[in-house]
Amino acid sequence: MPEPEIRISAAVLVIGNEILSGRTQDSNLAYLAARLNDYGIQVREARVVPDLEDAIVAAVNSLRARFDYVFTTGGIGPTHDDITAECIAKAFGVPLVIDDEIAEVLRRRPAPPEAMEARMRMARVPQGAGLIRNPFGPHGFHIGNVYVMAGVPQVMRAMIDGLDGQLRRGQTIRSRSVTADLPESRVARRLGEIQAASPHIDLGSYPFFRDDRHGTTLVMRGSVEAELDAMLEQIRRMIVELGGTPTDEQRT
Amino acid sequence: MPEPEIRISAAVLVIGNEILSGRTQDSNLAYLAARLNDYGIQVREARVVPDLEDAIVAAVNSLRARFDYVFTTGGIGPTHDDITAECIAKAFGVPLVIDDEIAEVLRRRPAPPEAMEARMRMARVPQGAGLIRNPFGPHGFHIGNVYVMAGVPQVMRAMIDGLDGQLRRGQTIRSRSVTADLPESRVARRLGEIQAASPHIDLGSYPFFRDDRHGTTLVMRGSVEAELDAMLEQIRRMIVELGGTPTDEQRT
Repeated sequence: MPEPEIRISAAVLVIGNEILSGRTQDSNLAYLAARLNDYGIQVREARVVPDLEDAIVAAVNSLRARFDYVFTTGGIGPTHDDITAECIAKAFGVPLVIDDEIAEVLRRRPAPPEAMEARMRMARVPQGAGLIRNPFGPHGFHIGNVYVMAGVPQVMRAMIDGLDGQLRRGQTIRSRSVTADLPESRVARRLGEIQAASPHIDLGSYPFFRDDRHGTTLVMRGSVEAELDAMLEQIRRMIVELGGTPTDEQRT
Repeated sequence: MPEPEIRISAAVLVIGNEILSGRTQDSNLAYLAARLNDYGIQVREARVVPDLEDAIVAAVNSLRARFDYVFTTGGIGPTHDDITAECIAKAFGVPLVIDDEIAEVLRRRPAPPEAMEARMRMARVPQGAGLIRNPFGPHGFHIGNVYVMAGVPQVMRAMIDGLDGQLRRGQTIRSRSVTADLPESRVARRLGEIQAASPHIDLGSYPFFRDDRHGTTLVMRGSVEAELDAMLEQIRRMIVELGGTPTDEQRT
Protein backbone atom coordinates (compact mmCIF):
# COMPACT_ATOMS: atom_id res chain seq x y z
CA MET A 1 0.00 0.00 0.00
CA PRO A 2 1.58 3.31 -1.01
CA GLU A 3 1.96 5.86 1.77
CA PRO A 4 -0.36 8.87 1.71
CA GLU A 5 1.38 11.89 0.19
CA ILE A 6 0.14 14.46 2.65
CA ARG A 7 2.47 15.96 5.21
CA ILE A 8 1.16 16.21 8.75
CA SER A 9 2.84 18.66 11.08
CA ALA A 10 3.19 18.84 14.84
CA ALA A 11 4.59 21.11 17.50
CA VAL A 12 5.92 19.93 20.86
CA LEU A 13 5.31 22.10 23.92
CA VAL A 14 7.46 21.23 26.93
CA ILE A 15 6.02 22.74 30.12
CA GLY A 16 8.23 23.11 33.17
CA ASN A 17 10.52 25.47 35.10
CA GLU A 18 13.01 22.64 35.65
CA ILE A 19 13.86 22.52 31.93
CA LEU A 20 14.32 26.30 31.67
CA SER A 21 16.50 26.48 34.78
CA GLY A 22 18.86 23.86 33.37
CA ARG A 23 18.24 21.56 36.33
CA THR A 24 16.70 18.88 34.10
CA GLN A 25 17.86 18.00 30.61
CA ASP A 26 14.80 17.43 28.42
CA SER A 27 14.79 14.09 26.61
CA ASN A 28 11.12 14.04 25.64
CA LEU A 29 11.47 16.09 22.45
CA ALA A 30 13.94 13.70 20.79
CA TYR A 31 11.82 10.64 21.67
CA LEU A 32 8.58 12.29 20.54
CA ALA A 33 10.08 13.51 17.27
CA ALA A 34 11.31 10.05 16.32
CA ARG A 35 8.11 8.29 17.40
CA LEU A 36 5.83 10.79 15.64
CA ASN A 37 7.83 10.34 12.44
CA ASP A 38 7.09 6.60 12.70
CA TYR A 39 3.43 7.64 12.76
CA GLY A 40 3.84 9.82 9.66
CA ILE A 41 3.83 13.12 11.56
CA GLN A 42 6.69 15.64 11.46
CA VAL A 43 7.63 17.91 14.36
CA ARG A 44 8.15 21.39 12.88
CA GLU A 45 8.63 23.45 16.07
CA ALA A 46 9.23 22.93 19.77
CA ARG A 47 8.84 25.32 22.67
CA VAL A 48 9.70 25.21 26.34
CA VAL A 49 7.65 27.47 28.62
CA PRO A 50 7.58 27.92 32.42
CA ASP A 51 4.77 26.82 34.78
CA LEU A 52 2.91 30.11 34.24
CA GLU A 53 -0.67 30.32 33.02
CA ASP A 54 -0.23 33.20 30.56
CA ALA A 55 2.82 31.60 28.95
CA ILE A 56 1.16 28.19 28.58
CA VAL A 57 -2.17 29.49 27.25
CA ALA A 58 -0.47 31.78 24.72
CA ALA A 59 1.84 29.02 23.46
CA VAL A 60 -1.00 26.47 23.15
CA ASN A 61 -3.19 28.88 21.20
CA SER A 62 -0.38 29.98 18.91
CA LEU A 63 0.78 26.45 18.15
CA ARG A 64 -2.60 24.76 17.72
CA ALA A 65 -3.54 27.32 15.07
CA ARG A 66 -0.37 26.70 13.06
CA PHE A 67 0.20 22.94 13.23
CA ASP A 68 -1.93 19.84 12.63
CA TYR A 69 -1.12 18.53 16.12
CA VAL A 70 0.32 19.86 19.38
CA PHE A 71 1.82 17.48 21.94
CA THR A 72 2.48 18.85 25.42
CA THR A 73 4.57 17.27 28.17
CA GLY A 74 4.61 18.16 31.86
CA GLY A 75 2.45 19.79 34.52
CA ILE A 76 -0.27 17.15 34.94
CA GLY A 77 0.57 15.91 38.47
CA PRO A 78 -1.20 16.53 41.80
CA THR A 79 0.71 19.57 43.13
CA HIS A 80 0.21 23.35 43.00
CA ASP A 81 2.74 23.72 40.15
CA ASP A 82 0.79 21.32 37.90
CA ILE A 83 -1.44 23.73 36.01
CA THR A 84 -1.51 22.30 32.49
CA ALA A 85 -5.12 20.99 32.62
CA GLU A 86 -6.59 24.36 33.63
CA CYS A 87 -4.43 26.17 31.07
CA ILE A 88 -5.63 23.92 28.24
CA ALA A 89 -9.25 24.41 29.36
CA LYS A 90 -8.68 28.16 29.36
CA ALA A 91 -7.03 28.05 25.92
CA PHE A 92 -10.13 26.26 24.56
CA GLY A 93 -12.60 28.35 26.57
CA VAL A 94 -14.24 25.34 28.26
CA PRO A 95 -14.66 24.40 31.95
CA LEU A 96 -12.64 21.71 33.74
CA VAL A 97 -14.69 18.65 34.69
CA ILE A 98 -13.95 15.46 36.63
CA ASP A 99 -13.41 12.47 34.35
CA ASP A 100 -15.00 9.40 35.98
CA GLU A 101 -12.63 6.93 34.36
CA ILE A 102 -9.50 8.74 35.61
CA ALA A 103 -11.10 9.17 39.06
CA GLU A 104 -11.70 5.40 39.16
CA VAL A 105 -8.01 4.71 38.34
CA LEU A 106 -6.94 7.11 41.09
CA ARG A 107 -9.24 5.54 43.69
CA ARG A 108 -7.80 2.09 42.99
CA ARG A 109 -4.50 2.90 44.71
CA PRO A 110 -5.17 3.40 48.42
CA ALA A 111 -4.07 6.66 50.06
CA PRO A 112 -4.91 8.75 53.14
CA PRO A 113 -7.90 11.09 52.51
CA GLU A 114 -5.71 14.18 52.18
CA ALA A 115 -3.47 12.51 49.60
CA MET A 116 -6.48 11.15 47.73
CA GLU A 117 -7.94 14.64 47.52
CA ALA A 118 -4.69 15.93 45.99
CA ARG A 119 -4.60 13.05 43.52
CA MET A 120 -8.14 13.87 42.35
CA ARG A 121 -6.66 17.03 40.77
CA MET A 122 -5.36 14.62 38.13
CA ALA A 123 -8.93 13.57 37.21
CA ARG A 124 -9.76 17.08 36.00
CA VAL A 125 -9.90 17.43 32.21
CA PRO A 126 -11.29 20.12 29.90
CA GLN A 127 -14.94 19.42 29.03
CA GLY A 128 -15.14 17.31 25.86
CA ALA A 129 -11.62 15.83 26.17
CA GLY A 130 -10.78 12.23 25.23
CA LEU A 131 -8.28 10.13 27.15
CA ILE A 132 -4.67 9.12 26.44
CA ARG A 133 -4.00 5.73 28.05
CA ASN A 134 -1.36 5.50 30.79
CA PRO A 135 -0.54 1.95 31.96
CA PHE A 136 1.19 3.32 35.08
CA GLY A 137 -1.53 5.56 36.53
CA PRO A 138 -3.89 8.40 35.61
CA HIS A 139 -4.50 8.96 31.91
CA GLY A 140 -3.58 12.03 29.89
CA PHE A 141 -6.14 13.67 27.61
CA HIS A 142 -6.66 15.26 24.21
CA ILE A 143 -8.94 18.05 23.09
CA GLY A 144 -9.14 19.43 19.55
CA ASN A 145 -5.69 18.86 18.06
CA VAL A 146 -3.87 19.15 21.42
CA TYR A 147 -2.51 16.04 23.18
CA VAL A 148 -1.57 16.46 26.83
CA MET A 149 0.95 14.04 28.31
CA ALA A 150 3.06 13.54 31.42
CA GLY A 151 6.55 15.02 31.78
CA VAL A 152 8.14 11.94 33.40
CA PRO A 153 9.84 10.29 30.38
CA GLN A 154 8.78 6.72 31.24
CA VAL A 155 5.12 7.76 31.42
CA MET A 156 5.25 10.09 28.39
CA ARG A 157 6.74 7.26 26.31
CA ALA A 158 4.01 4.83 27.29
CA MET A 159 1.39 7.47 26.41
CA ILE A 160 2.74 8.29 22.94
CA ASP A 161 3.44 4.62 22.18
CA GLY A 162 -0.20 3.90 23.02
CA LEU A 163 -1.40 6.47 20.46
CA ASP A 164 -0.12 4.28 17.60
CA GLY A 165 -2.89 4.06 15.00
CA GLN A 166 -5.01 6.75 16.62
CA LEU A 167 -3.61 9.79 14.80
CA ARG A 168 -3.98 10.92 11.20
CA ARG A 169 -1.21 9.35 9.19
CA GLY A 170 0.86 11.27 6.63
CA GLN A 171 4.22 10.66 5.03
CA THR A 172 6.96 9.06 7.04
CA ILE A 173 10.29 10.70 6.41
CA ARG A 174 13.14 8.26 5.71
CA SER A 175 16.78 9.09 6.01
CA ARG A 176 20.21 8.13 4.74
CA SER A 177 23.44 9.25 6.30
CA VAL A 178 27.12 8.88 5.52
CA THR A 179 30.22 10.31 7.15
CA ALA A 180 33.16 11.90 5.32
CA ASP A 181 36.65 12.24 6.81
CA LEU A 182 36.77 15.74 5.32
CA PRO A 183 36.12 19.15 6.91
CA GLU A 184 32.74 20.69 6.14
CA SER A 185 34.25 23.46 4.02
CA ARG A 186 35.74 20.88 1.62
CA VAL A 187 32.33 19.46 0.76
CA ALA A 188 30.34 22.70 1.02
CA ARG A 189 30.18 23.80 -2.64
CA ARG A 190 29.38 20.34 -4.02
CA LEU A 191 26.75 19.78 -1.33
CA GLY A 192 25.07 23.06 -2.24
CA GLU A 193 24.87 21.93 -5.89
CA ILE A 194 23.50 18.51 -4.95
CA GLN A 195 20.87 20.12 -2.69
CA ALA A 196 19.86 22.64 -5.36
CA ALA A 197 19.31 19.82 -7.88
CA SER A 198 17.02 17.89 -5.48
CA PRO A 199 14.98 20.40 -3.49
CA HIS A 200 12.54 17.70 -2.28
CA ILE A 201 15.26 16.11 -0.16
CA ASP A 202 16.50 17.89 2.92
CA LEU A 203 20.30 17.57 2.95
CA GLY A 204 21.95 18.43 6.27
CA SER A 205 25.65 18.76 7.01
CA TYR A 206 26.97 18.18 10.54
CA PRO A 207 30.64 18.82 11.28
CA PHE A 208 32.53 17.17 14.11
CA PHE A 209 36.06 17.10 15.50
CA ARG A 210 37.22 13.71 16.74
CA ASP A 211 40.65 12.13 17.34
CA ASP A 212 42.24 15.37 16.15
CA ARG A 213 40.52 15.26 12.76
CA HIS A 214 37.68 17.22 11.20
CA GLY A 215 34.84 15.17 9.75
CA THR A 216 31.35 15.78 8.42
CA THR A 217 28.20 13.68 8.58
CA LEU A 218 25.76 14.20 5.73
CA VAL A 219 22.12 13.42 6.39
CA MET A 220 19.44 13.15 3.70
CA ARG A 221 15.77 13.18 4.66
CA GLY A 222 12.81 12.67 2.36
CA SER A 223 9.81 10.48 1.65
CA VAL A 224 10.88 8.70 -1.56
CA GLU A 225 13.37 5.86 -0.95
CA ALA A 226 14.69 5.78 -4.53
CA GLU A 227 15.50 9.51 -4.47
CA LEU A 228 17.33 9.09 -1.18
CA ASP A 229 19.35 6.17 -2.51
CA ALA A 230 20.30 8.17 -5.60
CA MET A 231 21.48 11.12 -3.51
CA LEU A 232 23.39 8.86 -1.14
CA GLU A 233 25.24 7.39 -4.14
CA GLN A 234 26.01 10.91 -5.44
CA ILE A 235 27.39 11.96 -2.09
CA ARG A 236 29.42 8.81 -1.66
CA ARG A 237 30.98 9.50 -5.08
CA MET A 238 31.62 13.13 -4.16
CA ILE A 239 33.49 12.09 -0.98
CA VAL A 240 35.76 9.74 -2.96
CA GLU A 241 36.40 12.38 -5.66
CA LEU A 242 37.45 14.85 -2.97
CA GLY A 243 39.99 12.33 -1.64
CA GLY A 244 37.98 11.07 1.34
CA THR A 245 36.50 7.76 2.45
CA PRO A 246 32.75 7.37 3.06
CA THR A 247 31.91 5.50 6.29
CA ASP A 248 29.12 4.86 8.83
CA GLU A 249 26.39 4.59 6.26
CA GLN A 250 22.88 4.39 7.74
CA ARG A 251 19.36 3.96 6.43
CA THR A 252 16.19 4.51 8.46
CA MET B 1 28.42 44.11 47.24
CA PRO B 2 24.69 43.38 47.19
CA GLU B 3 23.32 41.91 43.98
CA PRO B 4 21.20 44.16 41.77
CA GLU B 5 17.50 43.51 42.28
CA ILE B 6 16.46 43.64 38.65
CA ARG B 7 15.51 40.49 36.81
CA ILE B 8 16.98 40.05 33.36
CA SER B 9 15.26 37.64 31.01
CA ALA B 10 16.46 35.62 28.07
CA ALA B 11 15.10 33.30 25.42
CA VAL B 12 17.08 30.51 23.78
CA LEU B 13 16.49 29.78 20.09
CA VAL B 14 17.85 26.43 18.91
CA ILE B 15 18.11 26.33 15.09
CA GLY B 16 18.36 23.00 13.32
CA ASN B 17 16.42 20.24 11.57
CA GLU B 18 18.50 17.59 13.38
CA ILE B 19 16.96 18.54 16.73
CA LEU B 20 13.37 18.50 15.40
CA SER B 21 13.86 15.15 13.64
CA GLY B 22 15.01 13.53 16.89
CA ARG B 23 18.35 12.59 15.32
CA THR B 24 20.27 14.81 17.75
CA GLN B 25 19.42 15.32 21.42
CA ASP B 26 19.88 19.00 22.27
CA SER B 27 22.15 19.63 25.24
CA ASN B 28 22.78 23.33 24.64
CA LEU B 29 19.64 24.62 26.39
CA ALA B 30 20.49 23.04 29.76
CA TYR B 31 24.08 24.32 29.65
CA LEU B 32 23.04 27.81 28.54
CA ALA B 33 20.31 28.07 31.20
CA ALA B 34 22.70 27.20 34.03
CA ARG B 35 25.50 29.42 32.73
CA LEU B 36 23.21 32.41 32.12
CA ASN B 37 21.85 32.07 35.65
CA ASP B 38 25.46 32.37 36.88
CA TYR B 39 25.53 35.66 34.94
CA GLY B 40 22.31 36.87 36.58
CA ILE B 41 20.11 36.19 33.54
CA GLN B 42 17.09 33.87 33.56
CA VAL B 43 15.95 31.85 30.57
CA ARG B 44 12.15 32.27 30.34
CA GLU B 45 11.43 30.52 27.06
CA ALA B 46 13.14 28.26 24.54
CA ARG B 47 12.24 27.41 20.97
CA VAL B 48 13.52 24.97 18.41
CA VAL B 49 12.93 25.87 14.75
CA PRO B 50 13.99 24.22 11.47
CA ASP B 51 16.60 25.56 9.01
CA LEU B 52 13.97 27.65 7.22
CA GLU B 53 14.25 31.39 6.72
CA ASP B 54 10.66 32.32 7.54
CA ALA B 55 10.65 30.27 10.75
CA ILE B 56 13.97 31.68 11.97
CA VAL B 57 13.18 35.33 11.16
CA ALA B 58 9.74 35.12 12.79
CA ALA B 59 11.10 33.49 15.95
CA VAL B 60 13.98 35.98 16.29
CA ASN B 61 11.67 38.97 15.89
CA SER B 62 9.08 37.61 18.29
CA LEU B 63 11.61 36.70 20.99
CA ARG B 64 13.82 39.79 20.80
CA ALA B 65 10.78 42.00 21.38
CA ARG B 66 9.74 40.09 24.52
CA PHE B 67 12.99 39.27 26.32
CA ASP B 68 16.07 41.23 27.39
CA TYR B 69 18.34 38.84 25.51
CA VAL B 70 18.03 36.14 22.84
CA PHE B 71 20.73 33.48 22.45
CA THR B 72 20.69 31.40 19.29
CA THR B 73 22.61 28.18 18.61
CA GLY B 74 23.23 26.51 15.26
CA GLY B 75 23.35 27.30 11.57
CA ILE B 76 26.55 29.34 11.37
CA GLY B 77 28.80 26.90 9.45
CA PRO B 78 29.99 26.97 5.81
CA THR B 79 27.31 24.86 4.08
CA HIS B 80 24.04 25.60 2.25
CA ASP B 81 21.94 24.69 5.32
CA ASP B 82 23.73 27.31 7.49
CA ILE B 83 21.44 30.30 7.05
CA THR B 84 21.38 31.87 10.51
CA ALA B 85 23.53 34.93 9.63
CA GLU B 86 21.33 35.98 6.70
CA CYS B 87 18.17 35.36 8.75
CA ILE B 88 19.39 37.59 11.60
CA ALA B 89 20.33 40.31 9.09
CA LYS B 90 16.86 40.04 7.58
CA ALA B 91 15.22 40.16 11.03
CA PHE B 92 17.08 43.40 11.75
CA GLY B 93 16.64 44.80 8.22
CA VAL B 94 20.38 45.30 7.63
CA PRO B 95 22.73 43.92 4.95
CA LEU B 96 25.27 41.13 5.52
CA VAL B 97 28.87 42.33 5.38
CA ILE B 98 32.25 40.57 5.54
CA ASP B 99 33.89 40.95 8.96
CA ASP B 100 37.64 41.44 8.45
CA GLU B 101 38.58 39.91 11.79
CA ILE B 102 36.66 36.68 11.16
CA ALA B 103 38.01 36.56 7.59
CA GLU B 104 41.55 36.81 9.00
CA VAL B 105 40.88 33.88 11.39
CA LEU B 106 39.53 31.81 8.50
CA ARG B 107 42.52 32.55 6.25
CA ARG B 108 44.94 31.39 8.94
CA ARG B 109 44.03 27.72 8.45
CA PRO B 110 45.20 26.65 4.98
CA ALA B 111 42.63 25.14 2.60
CA PRO B 112 42.18 24.59 -1.15
CA PRO B 113 40.63 27.67 -2.87
CA GLU B 114 37.19 26.07 -3.20
CA ALA B 115 37.09 25.17 0.53
CA MET B 116 38.36 28.62 1.50
CA GLU B 117 35.59 30.23 -0.50
CA ALA B 118 33.01 28.12 1.38
CA ARG B 119 34.59 29.00 4.72
CA MET B 120 34.34 32.71 3.92
CA ARG B 121 30.56 32.32 4.33
CA MET B 122 31.34 32.22 8.05
CA ALA B 123 32.85 35.74 7.89
CA ARG B 124 29.48 37.25 6.93
CA VAL B 125 27.78 39.14 9.76
CA PRO B 126 24.87 41.60 9.84
CA GLN B 127 26.10 45.19 9.46
CA GLY B 128 26.80 46.69 12.88
CA ALA B 129 27.32 43.35 14.67
CA GLY B 130 29.92 42.82 17.41
CA LEU B 131 31.88 39.57 17.78
CA ILE B 132 31.55 36.64 20.20
CA ARG B 133 35.00 35.10 20.72
CA ASN B 134 35.58 31.49 19.65
CA PRO B 135 38.96 30.01 20.64
CA PHE B 136 38.47 27.11 18.19
CA GLY B 137 37.75 29.01 14.97
CA PRO B 138 35.51 31.69 13.48
CA HIS B 139 33.75 33.97 15.95
CA GLY B 140 30.01 34.27 16.54
CA PHE B 141 28.35 37.69 16.61
CA HIS B 142 25.78 39.83 18.39
CA ILE B 143 23.47 42.54 17.14
CA GLY B 144 20.96 44.41 19.28
CA ASN B 145 19.98 42.00 22.05
CA VAL B 146 20.54 38.86 19.93
CA TYR B 147 23.62 36.67 20.46
CA VAL B 148 24.40 34.18 17.70
CA MET B 149 26.45 31.12 18.59
CA ALA B 150 27.54 27.78 17.14
CA GLY B 151 25.46 24.63 17.53
CA VAL B 152 28.39 22.28 18.24
CA PRO B 153 28.26 22.05 22.06
CA GLN B 154 32.02 22.36 22.61
CA VAL B 155 32.11 25.60 20.59
CA MET B 156 28.86 27.00 22.00
CA ARG B 157 30.18 26.48 25.54
CA ALA B 158 33.43 28.31 24.81
CA MET B 159 31.45 31.18 23.31
CA ILE B 160 29.02 31.63 26.22
CA ASP B 161 31.81 31.13 28.78
CA GLY B 162 33.72 33.93 27.05
CA LEU B 163 30.78 36.34 27.46
CA ASP B 164 31.29 36.36 31.25
CA GLY B 165 31.20 40.00 32.39
CA GLN B 166 30.01 41.32 29.02
CA LEU B 167 26.24 41.09 29.61
CA ARG B 168 23.95 43.15 31.83
CA ARG B 169 23.86 41.53 35.22
CA GLY B 170 20.64 40.97 37.21
CA GLN B 171 19.69 38.72 40.07
CA THR B 172 21.16 35.25 40.22
CA ILE B 173 18.59 32.69 41.25
CA ARG B 174 19.74 30.36 44.02
CA SER B 175 18.17 27.03 44.79
CA ARG B 176 17.64 24.51 47.56
CA SER B 177 16.40 21.00 47.05
CA VAL B 178 15.47 18.07 49.24
CA THR B 179 14.03 14.66 48.49
CA ALA B 180 11.14 12.98 50.34
CA ASP B 181 10.51 9.23 50.33
CA LEU B 182 6.80 10.03 49.94
CA PRO B 183 4.55 10.06 46.88
CA GLU B 184 3.77 13.51 45.49
CA SER B 185 0.12 13.33 46.48
CA ARG B 186 1.08 12.94 50.17
CA VAL B 187 2.93 16.28 50.21
CA ALA B 188 0.67 18.12 47.76
CA ARG B 189 -1.67 20.02 50.11
CA ARG B 190 1.06 21.15 52.50
CA LEU B 191 3.29 22.21 49.59
CA GLY B 192 0.48 24.33 48.20
CA GLU B 193 0.13 26.11 51.55
CA ILE B 194 3.89 26.69 51.82
CA GLN B 195 4.01 28.06 48.28
CA ALA B 196 1.01 30.36 48.88
CA ALA B 197 2.69 31.82 51.97
CA SER B 198 5.91 32.64 50.04
CA PRO B 199 4.98 33.68 46.53
CA HIS B 200 8.48 35.13 45.87
CA ILE B 201 9.96 31.66 45.93
CA ASP B 202 9.26 29.23 43.13
CA LEU B 203 8.55 25.83 44.71
CA GLY B 204 8.64 22.90 42.30
CA SER B 205 7.66 19.29 42.97
CA TYR B 206 9.19 16.46 40.90
CA PRO B 207 7.93 12.91 41.41
CA PHE B 208 10.00 9.83 40.63
CA PHE B 209 9.68 6.06 40.91
CA ARG B 210 12.86 4.26 41.92
CA ASP B 211 13.59 0.85 43.50
CA ASP B 212 9.85 0.17 43.57
CA ARG B 213 9.10 3.26 45.66
CA HIS B 214 7.50 6.61 44.91
CA GLY B 215 9.50 9.66 45.94
CA THR B 216 9.36 13.41 45.38
CA THR B 217 12.10 15.99 45.00
CA LEU B 218 11.20 19.51 46.13
CA VAL B 219 13.10 22.39 44.56
CA MET B 220 13.00 25.98 45.81
CA ARG B 221 14.30 28.79 43.61
CA GLY B 222 14.62 32.44 44.54
CA SER B 223 17.08 35.29 44.97
CA VAL B 224 17.16 35.70 48.77
CA GLU B 225 19.25 33.05 50.54
CA ALA B 226 17.62 33.51 53.95
CA GLU B 227 14.13 33.00 52.52
CA LEU B 228 15.27 29.84 50.76
CA ASP B 229 16.83 28.48 53.94
CA ALA B 230 13.63 29.17 55.86
CA MET B 231 11.50 27.35 53.30
CA LEU B 232 13.91 24.43 53.17
CA GLU B 233 13.58 24.10 56.95
CA GLN B 234 9.76 24.21 56.69
CA ILE B 235 9.75 21.51 54.04
CA ARG B 236 12.18 19.32 55.92
CA ARG B 237 9.86 19.54 58.96
CA MET B 238 6.83 18.76 56.79
CA ILE B 239 8.47 15.60 55.42
CA VAL B 240 9.21 14.35 58.95
CA GLU B 241 5.68 15.19 60.15
CA LEU B 242 4.23 13.18 57.26
CA GLY B 243 6.31 10.16 58.33
CA GLY B 244 9.10 10.49 55.77
CA THR B 245 12.84 11.09 55.82
CA PRO B 246 14.40 14.11 54.07
CA THR B 247 17.53 13.27 52.02
CA ASP B 248 19.79 14.51 49.21
CA GLU B 249 19.75 18.12 50.32
CA GLN B 250 21.41 20.52 47.89
CA ARG B 251 22.21 24.23 47.78
CA THR B 252 23.33 26.12 44.68
